[in-house]
Amino acid sequence: MEAGKQAINKRTGKKFEEGEAVTAEEMFWCASCRPCADGYPNHCEKLQELGFSCDGAFAEYVKVDSRYIWSLEELKRVYKGDDLFLAGSVVEPTSVAYNAVIERGGGIRPGDNAVILGGGPIGLAAVAIMKKAGASNVILSEPSEPRAKLGKLMGADHIINPLKENFTERVLDITGGLGAKLYLEATGLPDKVWADIEQSIWEGKMINSTVVIVARSDKKIPVTGEVFQVRRASIVGSQGHSGHGTFPRVISSMASGMDMTPLITKKVTLDKVPENIVLLRTDRTECKITCEFK
Amino acid sequence: MEAGKQAINKRTGKKFEEGEAVTAEEMFWCASCRPCADGYPNHCEKLQELGFSCDGAFAEYVKVDSRYIWSLEELKRVYKGDDLFLAGSVVEPTSVAYNAVIERGGGIRPGDNAVILGGGPIGLAAVAIMKKAGASNVILSEPSEPRAKLGKLMGADHIINPLKENFTERVLDITGGLGAKLYLEATGLPDKVWADIEQSIWEGKMINSTVVIVARSDKKIPVTGEVFQVRRASIVGSQGHSGHGTFPRVISSMASGMDMTPLITKKVTLDKVPENIVLLRTDRTECKITCEFK
Amino acid sequence: MEAGKQAINKRTGKKFEEGEAVTAEEMFWCASCRPCADGYPNHCEKLQELGFSCDGAFAEYVKVDSRYIWSLEELKRVYKGDDLFLAGSVVEPTSVAYNAVIERGGGIRPGDNAVILGGGPIGLAAVAIMKKAGASNVILSEPSEPRAKLGKLMGADHIINPLKENFTERVLDITGGLGAKLYLEATGLPDKVWADIEQSIWEGKMINSTVVIVARSDKKIPVTGEVFQVRRASIVGSQGHSGHGTFPRVISSMASGMDMTPLITKKVTLDKVPENIVLLRTDRTECKITCEFK
Amino acid sequence: MEAGKQAINKRTGKKFEEGEAVTAEEMFWCASCRPCADGYPNHCEKLQELGFSCDGAFAEYVKVDSRYIWSLEELKRVYKGDDLFLAGSVVEPTSVAYNAVIERGGGIRPGDNAVILGGGPIGLAAVAIMKKAGASNVILSEPSEPRAKLGKLMGADHIINPLKENFTERVLDITGGLGAKLYLEATGLPDKVWADIEQSIWEGKMINSTVVIVARSDKKIPVTGEVFQVRRASIVGSQGHSGHGTFPRVISSMASGMDMTPLITKKVTLDKVPENIVLLRTDRTECKITCEFK
Repeated sequence: MEAGKQAINKRTGKKFEEGEAVTAEEMFWCASCRPCADGYPNHCEKLQELGFSCDGAFAEYVKVDSRYIWSLEELKRVYKGDDLFLAGSVVEPTSVAYNAVIERGGGIRPGDNAVILGGGPIGLAAVAIMKKAGASNVILSEPSEPRAKLGKLMGADHIINPLKENFTERVLDITGGLGAKLYLEATGLPDKVWADIEQSIWEGKMINSTVVIVARSDKKIPVTGEVFQVRRASIVGSQGHSGHGTFPRVISSMASGMDMTPLITKKVTLDKVPENIVLLRTDRTECKITCEFK
Repeated sequence: MEAGKQAINKRTGKKFEEGEAVTAEEMFWCASCRPCADGYPNHCEKLQELGFSCDGAFAEYVKVDSRYIWSLEELKRVYKGDDLFLAGSVVEPTSVAYNAVIERGGGIRPGDNAVILGGGPIGLAAVAIMKKAGASNVILSEPSEPRAKLGKLMGADHIINPLKENFTERVLDITGGLGAKLYLEATGLPDKVWADIEQSIWEGKMINSTVVIVARSDKKIPVTGEVFQVRRASIVGSQGHSGHGTFPRVISSMASGMDMTPLITKKVTLDKVPENIVLLRTDRTECKITCEFK
Repeated sequence: MEAGKQAINKRTGKKFEEGEAVTAEEMFWCASCRPCADGYPNHCEKLQELGFSCDGAFAEYVKVDSRYIWSLEELKRVYKGDDLFLAGSVVEPTSVAYNAVIERGGGIRPGDNAVILGGGPIGLAAVAIMKKAGASNVILSEPSEPRAKLGKLMGADHIINPLKENFTERVLDITGGLGAKLYLEATGLPDKVWADIEQSIWEGKMINSTVVIVARSDKKIPVTGEVFQVRRASIVGSQGHSGHGTFPRVISSMASGMDMTPLITKKVTLDKVPENIVLLRTDRTECKITCEFK
Repeated sequence: MEAGKQAINKRTGKKFEEGEAVTAEEMFWCASCRPCADGYPNHCEKLQELGFSCDGAFAEYVKVDSRYIWSLEELKRVYKGDDLFLAGSVVEPTSVAYNAVIERGGGIRPGDNAVILGGGPIGLAAVAIMKKAGASNVILSEPSEPRAKLGKLMGADHIINPLKENFTERVLDITGGLGAKLYLEATGLPDKVWADIEQSIWEGKMINSTVVIVARSDKKIPVTGEVFQVRRASIVGSQGHSGHGTFPRVISSMASGMDMTPLITKKVTLDKVPENIVLLRTDRTECKITCEFK
């Protein structure tokens, strides 16, 4: 990494030291609009996105304002050589999940139960975060066999196959009739899974459950207001990974035992990137594919 | 009021003094089940309700455990004679609204905007509470003329007739393009008003809006997850009036300028109660009818 | 006001319109350090301050990044001509108080009591904010007669002269034995007033009180841990006025009835500024002196 | 256990099943006073305490209202035979620590650092809870060798001997210059350790730190307001173990990997209780002594 003369390292509050290992947010928030000034950069009105609205990181070098840069130095305790940067490459998706379950979902208290619906990269990252946060039971609902296996690897205590099992029965059975404090909708099929979520909240003894919607979908969600009234429950939407101290806490979590690298199921060289982007649209076997530079 | 020997007055922490004016919660929470022990009496698993599961208050005397009794002494500063008990009779519906907008909705900060949908007793009480809480604009959406007038009396800065006006246009016009921090669904027709709420959140510049559902309905609400993701918004359900210091704060609010008595549009004697209960099922002119004992 | 070509108006999310009336934060936060990136600009590690570390506003023109600019257009509803800018000149001190009692102190619920210790500009602004937020009783403790009068004008329900009256007795008497939810230390003499605050918390029935320290002092505060344990109370420190949507909410509050202009007790021309700055060091009669440009 | 006919098991919401293993809160809150009605039983105005104001549990049988009873059934997954009740005997002190760091301290986010000052039963329990909650580094400050060893066993990542090492230097070194999100004062010597806490907050880059006072002491704490202003920090007092869902979450945490039984350093029979109570007043080698019934 080459740092500009005025670039400040948030880790030290000073200039970057030579050889500092870093990662970058992918959202370039403007730091001037109303949401940014109020402390909500994920909702920047002038947002630029690396790889979308400006040139991306599939290149040997990329120029990023130091505002979006976070040090990976802490990870050197656990990851050596290239593994450091592999670990660094999953900080961003992990931060999307962290923003969803911790910042927006309000987290859990140690001993609470959490249910993650959908074993894509965000759902799987959420599994590890909920386990790290002290969940008594982290339950992953995911029909795909390889994703379910990955879920186990990320720390899920229980897997539900919602196509073969009764979701509510399993959730209540595992949690001794309580249900979960936090449900993460990470399937992108909210209309399909919503009845299950509501039934678990309705039949479980737990009040104050929060349902976090993190996956994007244009489907209407058929919400039963009464469930959220009687069970004192809430629904929150989540987007983004910036702000709220999320990136540095994800990095510190990874430096203290939360291993996210199993999310990377494949490593490719730069010239193989295009075909692998196409692949990910349909292939549910791979989870995250990281591009390596030798 | 006649107090039992062991009955403790929460106002003083001691025995009741002679002549203490009081009101009662209508929900008899058990104080022993999991939600009660955790501090959420509105969700008591063994709930008894005055006038529903146990004999009600349409009687000269009613016996209520001191646990549910709150002193009205503070109101003597503002209300004299019978007016004291008229004021006392609206503490309960006001507490339902207070629990919805303050406890469950998280309140507002001074200078925020609030939109109340539906001008029944709960919606109208919420108008007064939001004004007391420092809302810059309290907007009531209500098609009925007499209810709208009552809304003005309770402190609404603006009335929208959703049958004749474009809800979102009016909300954005009044709030300078911001929209509201808090929306209260108090119509009981969530399926009908939801699109309006979402459009205001979507088009307004305000992020972090909360929609509180307080009216009961068995209709499914067609929620667009993306609106709540992009605008960082939330939905919470609300029920009940107990716990969280709500009753005493409502009473203190009423003792310091929040006049809820306009909610009482009619006073009847005990023998007229049955016909007036029937009347309220259809009559949208009356708001709250209070039974007086001479 | 003349706006740069890229300057964005947070009110509209677009370029500034001609003639837009504005005010500015006085703290130039960097938007890049760890506290800024996390959403806490009041704690910026690279802070520049207008009039301190960079040239100030005692000049006909001053150049400020649009990041720190907030529109006063909303105030045109209430203030005309020069009064608009007089009102604008008190947005900053009001925001310091708002940050203290609302953002850091967590605000109050309608019907709660608040005690403000010290009737300087910040304490007096806090009086108005607590009243706007629905306090049942706002109590100002202030020995100076002119400041006490000003307190009444800003909305204080009760004044305590701590040199002549027993603070705790008065607080408990006014609040019916409860005490306050929020105490603001705005005297700069925390060692002198602390025993009074603790005694009120200890003897009052209210639990969950918060003491906010906003005035600067290098005196040690003799805290009795047990008071904060037994009464479930908290102490928070507060500094700054930036972030958290504070400026725009103060402006909206002022546009809807919270009149802060009585804080301005004197208006001077630019050439009289130096002598008046000297004057304010000792004169407890004047509160805020605003410099006018004709 | 023998259950009364009307006793409700909070685990099921129904009558107790035969052979249900349970533990009890030690605080008998009245469920009727203002703090209890508001949801804060730890601050009950009519509190009775088992073993203090009413006959205690050093007996073969003790009668306790079902309101204060929590099921240990979940622990059968991990503890067998007598070990189940040994585990049950540490639920209460663990709940005191949990109430302090989670309920009053607001918990931490995964990846945050925590410093526990004092390795008595509460401090040691807090070590385990902070580790369970995902702390990146849990640091225990404790001069006694056997207590420090026990701290390691409970999950402390680092031990500071404050009599031999520079507290602040060690904290900053371990946390990469950040300092901690949460400091727990569990020594009972707040006047002695306070300067260290403040220096760590002042010199660390972390803002928003919370200091929780859980140990009782009648010493004045010399608080520097400026530290809490500049670092956006807070102080909260904590007492008790009841309410807020604490007991059941402690039990669920213990059922999912948080082993608190190392806290029990000695088991005695009923007749040895008196001499061991005397012993604990001076002996810093033993931590928790549990009385066993054969």
